[in-house]
Amino acid sequence: MAGTLVIVGGGEDRTGDRTVLRRVAELAGGAEARLVVLGTATTVPDDLRATYDKAFGDLAAEVTFLPVATREEANAASTVEAIGRATGVFFTGGDQSRIAAVFGGSDADTALHAAWERGIVVAGTSAGAAMMSTTMILGGGEQVPTTSVRTGPGLGFVSGLVVDMHFAERGRIARLLSLVAMFPHELGLGIDEDTAVVVSGSAFEVIGAGTVTVVDAGRATSVRVPASGDGPIALTGAVVHVLPSGYAFELATREPVITEAPVGTRARERGE
Amino acid sequence: MAGTLVIVGGGEDRTGDRTVLRRVAELAGGAEARLVVLGTATTVPDDLRATYDKAFGDLAAEVTFLPVATREEANAASTVEAIGRATGVFFTGGDQSRIAAVFGGSDADTALHAAWERGIVVAGTSAGAAMMSTTMILGGGEQVPTTSVRTGPGLGFVSGLVVDMHFAERGRIARLLSLVAMFPHELGLGIDEDTAVVVSGSAFEVIGAGTVTVVDAGRATSVRVPASGDGPIALTGAVVHVLPSGYAFELATREPVITEAPVGTRARERGE
Repeated sequence: MAGTLVIVGGGEDRTGDRTVLRRVAELAGGAEARLVVLGTATTVPDDLRATYDKAFGDLAAEVTFLPVATREEANAASTVEAIGRATGVFFTGGDQSRIAAVFGGSDADTALHAAWERGIVVAGTSAGAAMMSTTMILGGGEQVPTTSVRTGPGLGFVSGLVVDMHFAERGRIARLLSLVAMFPHELGLGIDEDTAVVVSGSAFEVIGAGTVTVVDAGRATSVRVPASGDGPIALTGAVVHVLPSGYAFELATREPVITEAPVGTRARERGE
Repeated sequence: MAGTLVIVGGGEDRTGDRTVLRRVAELAGGAEARLVVLGTATTVPDDLRATYDKAFGDLAAEVTFLPVATREEANAASTVEAIGRATGVFFTGGDQSRIAAVFGGSDADTALHAAWERGIVVAGTSAGAAMMSTTMILGGGEQVPTTSVRTGPGLGFVSGLVVDMHFAERGRIARLLSLVAMFPHELGLGIDEDTAVVVSGSAFEVIGAGTVTVVDAGRATSVRVPASGDGPIALTGAVVHVLPSGYAFELATREPVITEAPVGTRARERGE
Protein backbone atom coordinates (compact mmCIF):
# COMPACT_ATOMS: atom_id res chain seq x y z
CA MET A 1 0.00 0.00 0.00
CA ALA A 2 1.32 3.40 -0.97
CA GLY A 3 2.40 5.86 1.68
CA THR A 4 0.86 9.01 2.97
CA LEU A 5 0.94 12.40 1.25
CA VAL A 6 1.08 15.67 3.13
CA ILE A 7 0.12 18.51 0.80
CA VAL A 8 0.80 21.88 2.41
CA GLY A 9 -0.62 25.20 1.23
CA GLY A 10 2.63 27.09 1.86
CA GLY A 11 3.64 29.34 4.74
CA GLU A 12 3.57 26.52 7.31
CA ASP A 13 4.70 27.43 10.80
CA ARG A 14 8.41 26.57 11.14
CA THR A 15 9.28 27.99 14.53
CA GLY A 16 6.28 27.63 16.86
CA ASP A 17 3.96 24.65 17.32
CA ARG A 18 4.84 23.45 13.80
CA THR A 19 1.58 21.49 13.59
CA VAL A 20 2.04 20.62 9.94
CA LEU A 21 5.78 19.82 9.99
CA ARG A 22 5.32 17.88 13.21
CA ARG A 23 2.77 15.66 11.47
CA VAL A 24 5.17 15.08 8.58
CA ALA A 25 7.89 13.98 10.99
CA GLU A 26 5.48 11.81 13.01
CA LEU A 27 4.23 10.05 9.88
CA ALA A 28 7.85 9.47 8.87
CA GLY A 29 8.58 7.71 12.16
CA GLY A 30 8.98 10.50 14.71
CA ALA A 31 12.22 10.06 16.66
CA GLU A 32 13.21 7.41 14.09
CA ALA A 33 12.41 9.56 11.06
CA ARG A 34 14.97 10.05 8.32
CA LEU A 35 13.80 13.06 6.35
CA VAL A 36 15.14 14.24 3.01
CA VAL A 37 14.26 17.85 2.19
CA LEU A 38 14.36 18.52 -1.55
CA GLY A 39 15.03 22.12 -2.63
CA THR A 40 14.53 21.65 -6.37
CA ALA A 41 11.77 24.27 -6.59
CA THR A 42 13.67 27.05 -4.87
CA THR A 43 16.35 29.46 -6.02
CA VAL A 44 17.45 30.09 -2.42
CA PRO A 45 18.37 26.58 -1.23
CA ASP A 46 20.82 27.82 1.38
CA ASP A 47 18.11 29.82 3.15
CA LEU A 48 15.71 26.90 3.09
CA ARG A 49 18.38 24.45 4.21
CA ALA A 50 18.88 26.51 7.35
CA THR A 51 15.14 26.94 7.84
CA TYR A 52 14.20 23.28 7.56
CA ASP A 53 17.28 21.93 9.34
CA LYS A 54 16.10 23.97 12.30
CA ALA A 55 12.37 23.37 11.83
CA PHE A 56 12.71 19.58 11.65
CA GLY A 57 15.78 19.38 13.86
CA ASP A 58 14.15 18.20 17.09
CA LEU A 59 11.32 16.36 15.36
CA ALA A 60 13.29 13.73 13.43
CA ALA A 61 16.33 11.50 13.83
CA GLU A 62 17.97 12.79 10.70
CA VAL A 63 17.35 15.69 8.30
CA THR A 64 19.22 15.83 5.00
CA PHE A 65 18.76 18.83 2.72
CA LEU A 66 19.43 18.14 -0.97
CA PRO A 67 19.27 21.08 -3.38
CA VAL A 68 18.81 18.82 -6.48
CA ALA A 69 19.05 21.93 -8.66
CA THR A 70 20.03 20.16 -11.89
CA ARG A 71 19.06 17.00 -13.73
CA GLU A 72 22.58 15.78 -13.11
CA GLU A 73 21.95 15.95 -9.39
CA ALA A 74 18.51 14.36 -9.89
CA ASN A 75 20.14 11.40 -11.61
CA ALA A 76 23.07 11.16 -9.19
CA ALA A 77 23.51 7.91 -7.30
CA SER A 78 23.90 9.83 -4.03
CA THR A 79 20.47 11.43 -4.49
CA VAL A 80 18.86 8.09 -5.31
CA GLU A 81 20.51 6.51 -2.26
CA ALA A 82 19.40 9.30 0.08
CA ILE A 83 15.81 8.93 -1.11
CA GLY A 84 16.07 5.14 -0.88
CA ARG A 85 16.88 5.24 2.81
CA ALA A 86 14.48 8.10 3.71
CA THR A 87 11.30 7.46 5.67
CA GLY A 88 9.93 10.80 4.48
CA VAL A 89 10.62 13.33 1.75
CA PHE A 90 9.64 17.01 1.88
CA PHE A 91 9.60 19.29 -1.18
CA THR A 92 10.15 22.98 -0.46
CA GLY A 93 8.31 25.83 -2.15
CA GLY A 94 9.55 27.79 -5.16
CA ASP A 95 8.47 27.13 -8.72
CA GLN A 96 6.61 23.90 -9.46
CA SER A 97 7.72 23.96 -13.09
CA ARG A 98 11.29 23.51 -11.82
CA ILE A 99 10.28 20.32 -10.01
CA ALA A 100 8.70 19.07 -13.24
CA ALA A 101 11.67 20.00 -15.40
CA VAL A 102 14.55 19.11 -13.08
CA PHE A 103 13.19 16.24 -10.98
CA GLY A 104 10.51 14.77 -13.27
CA GLY A 105 11.43 11.47 -14.88
CA SER A 106 14.88 11.37 -13.26
CA ASP A 107 16.31 8.42 -11.39
CA ALA A 108 15.44 10.25 -8.18
CA ASP A 109 11.82 10.55 -9.35
CA THR A 110 11.71 6.82 -10.05
CA ALA A 111 13.31 6.06 -6.68
CA LEU A 112 10.86 8.34 -4.93
CA HIS A 113 7.85 6.66 -6.50
CA ALA A 114 9.24 3.26 -5.52
CA ALA A 115 9.80 4.44 -1.96
CA TRP A 116 6.32 5.93 -1.87
CA GLU A 117 4.83 2.63 -3.03
CA ARG A 118 6.65 0.97 -0.12
CA GLY A 119 4.94 3.39 2.25
CA ILE A 120 7.11 6.41 2.97
CA VAL A 121 5.66 9.88 3.49
CA VAL A 122 5.84 12.33 0.61
CA ALA A 123 5.22 15.92 1.68
CA GLY A 124 5.53 19.25 -0.04
CA THR A 125 4.64 22.87 0.49
CA SER A 126 3.47 25.47 -2.01
CA ALA A 127 5.20 24.51 -5.30
CA GLY A 128 6.01 21.22 -3.60
CA ALA A 129 2.29 20.76 -3.01
CA ALA A 130 1.11 21.78 -6.47
CA MET A 131 3.19 19.10 -8.16
CA MET A 132 1.73 16.20 -6.13
CA SER A 133 -1.13 15.43 -8.48
CA THR A 134 -1.27 14.22 -12.07
CA THR A 135 -2.35 17.71 -13.15
CA MET A 136 -0.86 20.80 -11.55
CA ILE A 137 -1.56 24.51 -11.80
CA LEU A 138 1.30 26.45 -13.39
CA GLY A 139 -0.17 29.93 -13.14
CA GLY A 140 -2.75 32.17 -14.68
CA GLY A 141 -5.27 34.83 -13.79
CA GLU A 142 -6.38 34.76 -10.20
CA GLN A 143 -9.15 37.30 -10.31
CA VAL A 144 -11.99 36.86 -12.75
CA PRO A 145 -12.87 33.28 -13.73
CA THR A 146 -11.51 32.89 -17.26
CA THR A 147 -9.69 30.19 -19.17
CA SER A 148 -6.33 31.84 -18.49
CA VAL A 149 -5.36 29.28 -15.84
CA ARG A 150 -2.48 27.15 -17.12
CA THR A 151 -1.84 23.56 -16.14
CA GLY A 152 0.73 20.88 -16.79
CA PRO A 153 1.47 17.38 -15.61
CA GLY A 154 2.73 17.01 -12.06
CA LEU A 155 4.57 14.09 -10.48
CA GLY A 156 1.35 12.09 -10.15
CA PHE A 157 1.26 10.86 -6.55
CA VAL A 158 -2.49 11.42 -6.59
CA SER A 159 -4.97 11.79 -9.42
CA GLY A 160 -8.39 13.32 -9.83
CA LEU A 161 -7.57 16.49 -7.94
CA VAL A 162 -5.76 19.74 -8.57
CA VAL A 163 -4.14 21.71 -5.76
CA ASP A 164 -4.00 25.48 -5.48
CA MET A 165 -2.01 26.90 -2.59
CA HIS A 166 -1.76 30.14 -0.57
CA PHE A 167 -5.46 29.89 -1.27
CA ALA A 168 -7.26 32.35 0.95
CA GLU A 169 -4.19 34.56 1.24
CA ARG A 170 -4.02 35.16 -2.51
CA GLY A 171 -7.77 34.96 -3.18
CA ARG A 172 -7.46 32.19 -5.74
CA ILE A 173 -10.95 30.70 -5.81
CA ALA A 174 -11.76 32.28 -9.19
CA ARG A 175 -8.79 30.44 -10.67
CA LEU A 176 -9.87 27.15 -9.15
CA LEU A 177 -13.47 27.61 -10.29
CA SER A 178 -12.16 28.25 -13.82
CA LEU A 179 -10.17 25.07 -13.69
CA VAL A 180 -12.99 22.81 -12.53
CA ALA A 181 -15.36 24.45 -15.02
CA MET A 182 -12.97 23.41 -17.79
CA PHE A 183 -12.13 20.02 -16.24
CA PRO A 184 -14.99 18.92 -13.96
CA HIS A 185 -13.41 15.50 -13.64
CA GLU A 186 -10.82 17.11 -11.40
CA LEU A 187 -11.67 18.10 -7.87
CA GLY A 188 -10.27 21.51 -6.96
CA LEU A 189 -8.44 21.74 -3.62
CA GLY A 190 -7.56 25.22 -2.39
CA ILE A 191 -5.22 24.96 0.60
CA ASP A 192 -4.59 27.94 2.86
CA GLU A 193 -1.21 28.75 4.32
CA ASP A 194 -0.12 26.79 7.41
CA THR A 195 -2.73 24.20 6.45
CA ALA A 196 -2.37 20.78 4.85
CA VAL A 197 -4.24 17.76 3.63
CA VAL A 198 -2.96 14.38 4.74
CA VAL A 199 -3.93 11.92 2.01
CA SER A 200 -4.13 8.27 2.96
CA GLY A 201 -5.92 5.75 0.78
CA SER A 202 -8.86 7.48 -0.88
CA ALA A 203 -9.44 10.06 1.86
CA PHE A 204 -7.72 13.13 3.20
CA GLU A 205 -7.72 14.80 6.57
CA VAL A 206 -7.32 18.56 7.10
CA ILE A 207 -4.68 19.78 9.58
CA GLY A 208 -3.28 23.19 10.47
CA ALA A 209 -4.55 26.69 11.08
CA GLY A 210 -6.63 27.53 8.01
CA THR A 211 -9.11 25.79 5.77
CA VAL A 212 -9.15 23.63 2.68
CA THR A 213 -11.73 24.70 0.12
CA VAL A 214 -12.97 21.84 -2.04
CA VAL A 215 -14.54 22.95 -5.32
CA ASP A 216 -16.57 20.21 -7.00
CA ALA A 217 -18.02 20.87 -10.46
CA GLY A 218 -18.93 17.21 -10.88
CA ARG A 219 -22.57 17.97 -10.28
CA ALA A 220 -22.51 21.24 -12.21
CA THR A 221 -25.74 21.80 -14.10
CA SER A 222 -24.16 23.89 -16.85
CA VAL A 223 -20.77 25.12 -17.90
CA ARG A 224 -19.78 27.71 -20.48
CA VAL A 225 -16.12 28.21 -21.31
CA PRO A 226 -15.36 30.97 -23.80
CA ALA A 227 -12.99 29.79 -26.48
CA SER A 228 -10.95 32.97 -26.41
CA GLY A 229 -10.10 32.88 -22.72
CA ASP A 230 -11.04 36.52 -22.49
CA GLY A 231 -14.70 36.30 -21.60
CA PRO A 232 -15.88 35.13 -18.21
CA ILE A 233 -16.78 31.49 -17.68
CA ALA A 234 -20.21 30.39 -16.53
CA LEU A 235 -20.65 27.58 -14.04
CA THR A 236 -23.86 26.64 -12.27
CA GLY A 237 -24.43 24.11 -9.55
CA ALA A 238 -20.86 23.71 -8.36
CA VAL A 239 -20.51 22.50 -4.79
CA VAL A 240 -18.09 24.08 -2.32
CA HIS A 241 -16.89 22.77 1.01
CA VAL A 242 -14.79 24.84 3.41
CA LEU A 243 -13.03 22.40 5.69
CA PRO A 244 -10.89 23.30 8.70
CA SER A 245 -9.01 20.94 10.97
CA GLY A 246 -11.44 18.35 12.29
CA TYR A 247 -12.79 17.55 8.85
CA ALA A 248 -11.86 14.88 6.36
CA PHE A 249 -12.94 14.22 2.80
CA GLU A 250 -13.63 11.00 0.95
CA LEU A 251 -12.21 11.47 -2.54
CA ALA A 252 -13.99 8.46 -4.06
CA THR A 253 -17.46 9.74 -3.20
CA ARG A 254 -16.56 13.45 -3.07
CA GLU A 255 -18.13 13.75 0.36
CA PRO A 256 -16.86 15.64 3.44
CA VAL A 257 -16.62 13.77 6.72
CA ILE A 258 -16.61 15.30 10.18
CA THR A 259 -13.93 13.61 12.24
CA GLU A 260 -13.99 15.66 15.41
CA ALA A 261 -17.05 16.05 17.62
CA PRO A 262 -19.21 18.22 15.40
CA VAL A 263 -20.31 21.62 16.55
CA GLY A 264 -23.56 22.39 14.84
CA THR A 265 -24.11 25.93 15.88
CA ARG A 266 -22.43 28.88 17.40
CA ALA A 267 -24.50 28.44 20.54
CA ARG A 268 -23.37 24.83 20.82
CA GLU A 269 -19.74 25.85 20.55
CA ARG A 270 -20.28 28.42 23.23
CA GLY A 271 -21.70 25.72 25.47
CA GLU A 272 -25.01 27.54 25.75
CA MET B 1 -45.73 46.47 -8.62
CA ALA B 2 -42.39 47.69 -7.36
CA GLY B 3 -39.77 48.95 -9.77
CA THR B 4 -36.54 47.47 -10.95
CA LEU B 5 -33.27 47.41 -9.03
CA VAL B 6 -29.88 47.66 -10.70
CA ILE B 7 -27.20 46.51 -8.27
CA VAL B 8 -23.73 47.29 -9.60
CA GLY B 9 -20.47 45.77 -8.30
CA GLY B 10 -18.56 49.06 -8.60
CA GLY B 11 -16.14 50.24 -11.26
CA GLU B 12 -18.77 50.35 -14.00
CA ASP B 13 -17.62 51.71 -17.35
CA ARG B 14 -18.47 55.43 -17.49
CA THR B 15 -16.84 56.53 -20.71
CA GLY B 16 -17.07 53.70 -23.27
CA ASP B 17 -20.01 51.43 -24.06
CA ARG B 18 -21.43 52.07 -20.58
CA THR B 19 -23.40 48.82 -20.72
CA VAL B 20 -24.50 49.03 -17.11
CA LEU B 21 -25.29 52.76 -16.95
CA ARG B 22 -27.03 52.54 -20.30
CA ARG B 23 -29.35 49.88 -18.90
CA VAL B 24 -30.10 52.09 -15.88
CA ALA B 25 -31.05 54.97 -18.16
CA GLU B 26 -33.11 52.74 -20.47
CA LEU B 27 -35.06 51.28 -17.56
CA ALA B 28 -35.69 54.83 -16.34
CA GLY B 29 -37.25 55.81 -19.67
CA GLY B 30 -34.30 56.34 -22.02
CA ALA B 31 -34.62 59.69 -23.76
CA GLU B 32 -37.40 60.55 -21.30
CA ALA B 33 -35.44 59.52 -18.19
CA ARG B 34 -35.15 61.90 -15.27
CA LEU B 35 -32.26 60.58 -13.19
CA VAL B 36 -31.28 61.67 -9.70
CA VAL B 37 -27.74 60.72 -8.72
CA LEU B 38 -27.30 60.55 -4.95
CA GLY B 39 -23.79 61.15 -3.61
CA THR B 40 -24.47 60.38 0.04
CA ALA B 41 -21.87 57.61 0.25
CA THR B 42 -18.99 59.61 -1.15
CA THR B 43 -16.65 62.16 0.34
CA VAL B 44 -15.79 63.50 -3.14
CA PRO B 45 -19.22 64.54 -4.48
CA ASP B 46 -17.82 67.15 -6.85
CA ASP B 47 -15.72 64.56 -8.68
CA LEU B 48 -18.63 62.17 -8.97
CA ARG B 49 -21.01 64.94 -10.03
CA ALA B 50 -18.74 65.64 -13.01
CA THR B 51 -18.30 61.92 -13.74
CA TYR B 52 -21.98 60.99 -13.74
CA ASP B 53 -23.22 64.20 -15.38
CA LYS B 54 -21.00 63.22 -18.28
CA ALA B 55 -21.63 59.45 -18.13
CA PHE B 56 -25.42 59.80 -18.13
CA GLY B 57 -25.48 63.03 -20.17
CA ASP B 58 -26.47 61.63 -23.55
CA LEU B 59 -28.40 58.68 -22.13
CA ALA B 60 -31.15 60.52 -20.24
CA ALA B 61 -33.32 63.61 -20.59
CA GLU B 62 -32.25 65.01 -17.26
CA VAL B 63 -29.50 64.23 -14.73
CA THR B 64 -29.56 65.84 -11.30
CA PHE B 65 -26.72 65.23 -8.87
CA LEU B 66 -27.63 65.66 -5.22
CA PRO B 67 -24.86 65.32 -2.62
CA VAL B 68 -27.30 64.69 0.28
CA ALA B 69 -24.34 64.75 2.64
CA THR B 70 -26.29 65.52 5.81
CA ARG B 71 -29.57 64.44 7.39
CA GLU B 72 -30.75 68.02 6.96
CA GLU B 73 -30.36 67.65 3.20
CA ALA B 74 -31.99 64.18 3.36
CA ASN B 75 -35.03 65.72 5.01
CA ALA B 76 -35.10 68.83 2.79
CA ALA B 77 -38.25 69.39 0.74
CA SER B 78 -36.13 69.97 -2.37
CA THR B 79 -34.56 66.51 -2.06
CA VAL B 80 -37.95 64.87 -1.56
CA GLU B 81 -39.33 66.73 -4.57
CA ALA B 82 -36.42 65.75 -6.80
CA ILE B 83 -36.86 62.10 -5.89
CA GLY B 84 -40.62 62.39 -6.33
CA ARG B 85 -40.29 63.47 -9.95
CA ALA B 86 -37.39 61.12 -10.84
CA THR B 87 -37.88 58.07 -13.05
CA GLY B 88 -34.64 56.61 -11.75
CA VAL B 89 -32.27 57.07 -8.81
CA PHE B 90 -28.59 56.09 -8.78
CA PHE B 91 -26.52 55.83 -5.59
CA THR B 92 -22.78 56.41 -6.04
CA GLY B 93 -20.06 54.44 -4.30
CA GLY B 94 -18.30 55.46 -1.12
CA ASP B 95 -19.17 54.17 2.32
CA GLN B 96 -22.44 52.27 2.73
CA SER B 97 -22.63 53.14 6.42
CA ARG B 98 -22.98 56.79 5.37
CA ILE B 99 -26.05 55.91 3.30
CA ALA B 100 -27.50 54.13 6.32
CA ALA B 101 -26.69 56.95 8.74
CA VAL B 102 -27.44 59.98 6.57
CA PHE B 103 -30.18 58.79 4.20
CA GLY B 104 -31.80 55.96 6.21
CA GLY B 105 -35.19 56.80 7.69
CA SER B 106 -35.16 60.35 6.28
CA ASP B 107 -38.01 61.95 4.34
CA ALA B 108 -35.97 61.28 1.20
CA ASP B 109 -35.77 57.58 2.13
CA THR B 110 -39.53 57.44 2.59
CA ALA B 111 -40.07 59.27 -0.71
CA LEU B 112 -37.69 56.93 -2.48
CA HIS B 113 -39.47 53.81 -1.21
CA ALA B 114 -42.80 55.30 -2.31
CA ALA B 115 -41.39 56.09 -5.75
CA TRP B 116 -39.91 52.63 -5.97
CA GLU B 117 -43.28 51.07 -5.12
CA ARG B 118 -44.76 53.10 -8.00
CA GLY B 119 -42.18 51.53 -10.31
CA ILE B 120 -39.11 53.72 -10.72
CA VAL B 121 -35.63 52.27 -11.11
CA VAL B 122 -33.37 52.25 -8.07
CA ALA B 123 -29.72 51.67 -8.95
CA GLY B 124 -26.49 51.84 -7.01
CA THR B 125 -22.85 50.98 -7.39
CA SER B 126 -20.43 49.63 -4.79
CA ALA B 127 -21.57 51.13 -1.46
CA GLY B 128 -24.76 52.08 -3.30
CA ALA B 129 -25.17 48.40 -4.19
CA ALA B 130 -24.38 46.99 -0.76
CA MET B 131 -27.15 48.98 0.89
CA MET B 132 -29.94 47.69 -1.41
CA SER B 133 -30.86 44.67 0.69
CA THR B 134 -32.30 44.31 4.17
CA THR B 135 -28.88 43.14 5.40
CA MET B 136 -25.69 44.70 4.11
CA ILE B 137 -22.03 43.96 4.56
CA LEU B 138 -20.18 46.69 6.45
CA GLY B 139 -16.69 45.23 6.31
CA GLY B 140 -14.56 42.56 7.83
CA GLY B 141 -11.85 40.10 6.92
CA GLU B 142 -11.70 39.23 3.27
CA GLN B 143 -9.18 36.43 3.36
CA VAL B 144 -9.79 33.45 5.58
CA PRO B 145 -13.42 32.52 6.27
CA THR B 146 -14.03 33.64 9.84
CA THR B 147 -16.83 35.34 11.69
CA SER B 148 -15.14 38.72 11.35
CA VAL B 149 -17.52 39.89 8.61
CA ARG B 150 -19.71 42.68 9.95
CA THR B 151 -23.25 43.40 8.79
CA GLY B 152 -25.95 45.94 9.44
CA PRO B 153 -29.38 46.78 8.10
CA GLY B 154 -29.50 48.29 4.62
CA LEU B 155 -32.32 50.25 2.99
CA GLY B 156 -34.31 47.07 2.33
CA PHE B 157 -35.28 47.22 -1.35
CA VAL B 158 -34.77 43.47 -1.53
CA SER B 159 -34.57 40.81 1.14
CA GLY B 160 -33.06 37.35 1.42
CA LEU B 161 -29.80 38.29 -0.21
CA VAL B 162 -26.57 40.02 0.76
CA VAL B 163 -24.43 41.82 -1.81
CA ASP B 164 -20.64 41.94 -1.84
CA MET B 165 -19.02 44.12 -4.51
CA HIS B 166 -15.65 44.47 -6.29
CA PHE B 167 -15.97 40.74 -5.85
CA ALA B 168 -13.37 39.07 -8.06
CA GLU B 169 -11.13 42.12 -8.00
CA ARG B 170 -10.79 42.06 -4.21
CA GLY B 171 -11.07 38.28 -3.79
CA ARG B 172 -14.00 38.42 -1.41
CA ILE B 173 -15.49 34.95 -1.65
CA ALA B 174 -14.13 33.91 1.75
CA ARG B 175 -16.03 36.79 3.30
CA LEU B 176 -19.23 35.84 1.51
CA LEU B 177 -18.85 32.17 2.44
CA SER B 178 -18.43 33.24 6.08
CA LEU B 179 -21.58 35.27 5.87
CA VAL B 180 -23.78 32.54 4.39
CA ALA B 181 -22.29 30.01 6.82
CA MET B 182 -23.51 32.21 9.66
CA PHE B 183 -26.77 33.15 7.96
CA PRO B 184 -27.75 30.46 5.44
CA HIS B 185 -31.15 32.09 5.03
CA GLU B 186 -29.38 34.81 3.05
CA LEU B 187 -28.18 34.18 -0.46
CA GLY B 188 -24.70 35.63 -1.04
CA LEU B 189 -24.27 37.68 -4.23
CA GLY B 190 -20.71 38.61 -5.17
CA ILE B 191 -20.78 41.14 -8.00
CA ASP B 192 -17.65 41.89 -10.03
CA GLU B 193 -16.74 45.37 -11.21
CA ASP B 194 -18.49 46.67 -14.34
CA THR B 195 -21.15 44.02 -13.72
CA ALA B 196 -24.66 44.29 -12.32
CA VAL B 197 -27.76 42.36 -11.41
CA VAL B 198 -31.08 43.74 -12.65
CA VAL B 199 -33.71 42.61 -10.16
CA SER B 200 -37.30 42.49 -11.34
CA GLY B 201 -39.95 40.56 -9.48
CA SER B 202 -38.34 37.53 -7.90
CA ALA B 203 -35.59 37.09 -10.51
CA PHE B 204 -32.44 38.89 -11.52
CA GLU B 205 -30.54 39.10 -14.78
CA VAL B 206 -26.77 39.53 -15.04
CA ILE B 207 -25.36 42.31 -17.25
CA GLY B 208 -21.92 43.74 -17.82
CA ALA B 209 -18.38 42.49 -18.30
CA GLY B 210 -17.74 40.21 -15.33
CA THR B 211 -19.62 37.60 -13.37
CA VAL B 212 -21.98 37.37 -10.44
CA THR B 213 -21.08 34.62 -7.99
CA VAL B 214 -24.06 33.26 -6.10
CA VAL B 215 -23.18 31.47 -2.87
CA ASP B 216 -26.03 29.34 -1.51
CA ALA B 217 -25.61 27.68 1.86
CA GLY B 218 -29.29 26.77 1.98
CA ARG B 219 -28.50 23.16 1.21
CA ALA B 220 -25.36 23.07 3.34
CA THR B 221 -24.94 19.74 5.06
CA SER B 222 -23.01 21.12 8.03
CA VAL B 223 -21.84 24.44 9.38
CA ARG B 224 -19.44 25.24 12.18
CA VAL B 225 -19.00 28.82 13.27
CA PRO B 226 -16.41 29.40 15.99
CA ALA B 227 -17.75 31.61 18.71
CA SER B 228 -14.57 33.61 18.98
CA GLY B 229 -14.40 34.70 15.38
CA ASP B 230 -10.76 33.75 15.35
CA GLY B 231 -10.94 30.17 14.18
CA PRO B 232 -11.86 29.23 10.64
CA ILE B 233 -15.47 28.39 9.81
CA ALA B 234 -16.50 25.05 8.38
CA LEU B 235 -19.15 24.78 5.70
CA THR B 236 -19.97 21.68 3.67
CA GLY B 237 -22.32 21.30 0.75
CA ALA B 238 -22.63 24.96 -0.22
CA VAL B 239 -23.61 25.55 -3.84
CA VAL B 240 -21.87 28.12 -6.03
CA HIS B 241 -22.96 29.55 -9.36
CA VAL B 242 -20.72 31.78 -11.47
CA LEU B 243 -23.02 33.73 -13.78
CA PRO B 244 -21.92 36.04 -16.59
CA SER B 245 -24.14 38.08 -18.87
CA GLY B 246 -26.66 35.76 -20.51
CA TYR B 247 -27.65 34.19 -17.21
CA ALA B 248 -30.49 34.97 -14.84
CA PHE B 249 -31.38 33.66 -11.41
CA GLU B 250 -34.70 32.86 -9.81
CA LEU B 251 -34.46 34.05 -6.22
CA ALA B 252 -37.56 32.19 -5.01
CA THR B 253 -36.25 28.78 -6.01
CA ARG B 254 -32.53 29.65 -5.85
CA GLU B 255 -32.02 28.30 -9.37
CA PRO B 256 -29.93 29.76 -12.21
CA VAL B 257 -31.60 30.25 -15.59
CA ILE B 258 -29.84 30.50 -18.94
CA THR B 259 -31.41 33.34 -20.90
CA GLU B 260 -29.18 33.50 -23.95
CA ALA B 261 -28.68 30.62 -26.34
CA PRO B 262 -26.76 28.23 -24.11
CA VAL B 263 -23.27 27.17 -25.01
CA GLY B 264 -22.65 23.82 -23.44
CA THR B 265 -19.05 23.26 -24.29
CA ARG B 266 -15.98 25.01 -25.48
CA ALA B 267 -16.25 23.13 -28.80
CA ARG B 268 -19.80 24.33 -29.23
CA GLU B 269 -18.78 27.94 -28.69
CA ARG B 270 -16.04 27.54 -31.23
CA GLY B 271 -18.61 26.30 -33.69
CA GLU B 272 -16.84 22.98 -34.02
